[in-house]
Amino acid sequence: MTVPKRFDWEKLQQFCSDVFVNAGVMRDSADIVAASLIQADLRGVDSHGVVRTAIYLNRIEKNMINPSAEILIEAEDDAIVLVNGNNHFGAVVGTKALDIALHKAQEKGAAIVGVKGSNHFGTGAFYVLKAIEKNMILLVLSNASQTMPPTGGIRPFIGTNPLAIGVPAGEEEPFILDMATSVVSRGKIIVADQKGENIPLGWAIDKDGNPTTDARDALEGSVLPVGGAKGYGISMFIDILAGVLTGAGFGKYVNNMYENWDEPQNVGHFFLAIDINRFMPIETFKLRMDLYLKEIKGEPKANGVEEIYIPGEIETLKEIERKKNGIELPSKVVEELIEIGKRYHLDLLNATISQENEHREALKEC
Amino acid sequence: MTVPKRFDWEKLQQFCSDVFVNAGVMRDSADIVAASLIQADLRGVDSHGVVRTAIYLNRIEKNMINPSAEILIEAEDDAIVLVNGNNHFGAVVGTKALDIALHKAQEKGAAIVGVKGSNHFGTGAFYVLKAIEKNMILLVLSNASQTMPPTGGIRPFIGTNPLAIGVPAGEEEPFILDMATSVVSRGKIIVADQKGENIPLGWAIDKDGNPTTDARDALEGSVLPVGGAKGYGISMFIDILAGVLTGAGFGKYVNNMYENWDEPQNVGHFFLAIDINRFMPIETFKLRMDLYLKEIKGEPKANGVEEIYIPGEIETLKEIERKKNGIELPSKVVEELIEIGKRYHLDLLNATISQENEHREALKEC
Repeated sequence: MTVPKRFDWEKLQQFCSDVFVNAGVMRDSADIVAASLIQADLRGVDSHGVVRTAIYLNRIEKNMINPSAEILIEAEDDAIVLVNGNNHFGAVVGTKALDIALHKAQEKGAAIVGVKGSNHFGTGAFYVLKAIEKNMILLVLSNASQTMPPTGGIRPFIGTNPLAIGVPAGEEEPFILDMATSVVSRGKIIVADQKGENIPLGWAIDKDGNPTTDARDALEGSVLPVGGAKGYGISMFIDILAGVLTGAGFGKYVNNMYENWDEPQNVGHFFLAIDINRFMPIETFKLRMDLYLKEIKGEPKANGVEEIYIPGEIETLKEIERKKNGIELPSKVVEELIEIGKRYHLDLLNATISQENEHREALKEC
Repeated sequence: MTVPKRFDWEKLQQFCSDVFVNAGVMRDSADIVAASLIQADLRGVDSHGVVRTAIYLNRIEKNMINPSAEILIEAEDDAIVLVNGNNHFGAVVGTKALDIALHKAQEKGAAIVGVKGSNHFGTGAFYVLKAIEKNMILLVLSNASQTMPPTGGIRPFIGTNPLAIGVPAGEEEPFILDMATSVVSRGKIIVADQKGENIPLGWAIDKDGNPTTDARDALEGSVLPVGGAKGYGISMFIDILAGVLTGAGFGKYVNNMYENWDEPQNVGHFFLAIDINRFMPIETFKLRMDLYLKEIKGEPKANGVEEIYIPGEIETLKEIERKKNGIELPSKVVEELIEIGKRYHLDLLNATISQENEHREALKEC
């Protein structure tokens, strides 16, 4: 049997949410986690999309995530809040922290929310986009389990700790930087290994700490921080703000989602929300952003470059395209989701884009 | 005549401050600017040290810096402040902004100070170190004039906009990340050019946007952002927070300190101070930092690596060494300072470490 490839994003999101509800998650939490996964797929960040449904379910089943946990505020002051996720879903904890940060920034001009006791929270863009809707600037940091060595080291110590920043614009697409602090994702090295290809020097080291172009050796070694000592420093500072400062894990005390089944991850996050209106009227700010973005996009281009993109622009264009034409999933992921559906009495095929729709869409393009 | 090489840091700082005072700067401002320069030399960041005395003096003389300006608070709320430097010295404006940020963070838990109308403010470490003394975490961003292309572009659009972050520790040296968002400083390319050496691929592009290993072609082209699109994104976000948000210049509206003599630089800065005590007792935090730093320093080392350093550690060790043994300056810089001294009726030679002291120090090492 050939499995379907393309899915309607809203139906797929409903399917995911239903799966989580049938696995014992409250509907509002299930909706948040499903929205986080689907948004990643829409924006082309497939590694953080519905492919993660299986691992999230596993972690609920093995009591590594507590979807009934009460998320608590442990400390609060004018401009800072400390949240304990109590091991709820990362996306649910993150969304709660974001809401607090936006609300407080509205009141005080800016606010920091530190989070401990959380789990993998999906993409940073998920939070940043919500802040942009409220005309806020948001910086989000999260630590992660060990994957990269310190400069001079040979084995993983810091995570590829991501940072994301979102800034609204006027007519232009918003600025959305969402990046891991590694040179490339481990996923790219896995792909090279599967194809039997070499990887460029500088992506990774082997298990003895030597630079390598062999993808297999790289997978047994460590991914490298972006920009050498600079990426190492940025990754550490994220670990400090998200982990050391909040009371979450840091370094080896952040557990690996795929490998550690003895205790929760204890991931930490850090949210900084800024109310633009306190600095200048939002309309003025948006005009300034538009000018900045238009000027950068209007720069002369290198040979072979068709367009200069601002961070997040390619993902935003993908989101528009995929909302219209559907999300295409690899057959391995589709098969896994079909199985998951069966386990939870749900039919993934309800989420496919019908042949008829596909033809209708194809006709429009002619 | 052979010029002296080594200088006592305190006497050199006094000399610089006296020069600025004789050039019409108030003593308190002169002291700040001198301290910023000397601290850079102490920490081995020679590019930001007393070598900049001449350009600062030039900019005062040409009315490009106004050392009598009144630094004003233009907006204030619980957690944010907007400061207009009114074109005073960057280090003076930055120090004022820092004081406000630390004071407000003490009151509110955290505070953001945005700054417009400033000038080149020296190193970020200068501010970060003062925050560490007060048990605060500080993030400092500044934009700068155009030196790097956007990803896909061929000519400078964004600055090597630096970011600095400081975090206190207990027994361990503090964490001090202070970095430009370029792969390397332009200074390193100048040195390669002077030596007739090639530069590694990836440092720069030529004026047509092609990758180059030729140092001369690189100098006529652009330095590249660290980590490709990631450094480009980080540099933009710094420009947005320090420039677009504050009302300062951004992109081409930040003027070059060496090249533009028609109007002030209008540099923007962004300070975020966090009072650690609001998250956990400072003693607990310092224990956690010490554990983190000790563990990372205790990691197995790659072949040929003697020690794993945390960001800022090498500079802190240099500062200790140079405070003891003096600051060594290149003869070109010494000659320039002697000339400057003559112009302002001051004798640089008063700041040298006497031969006798040098011998005494040398004996101690035996």
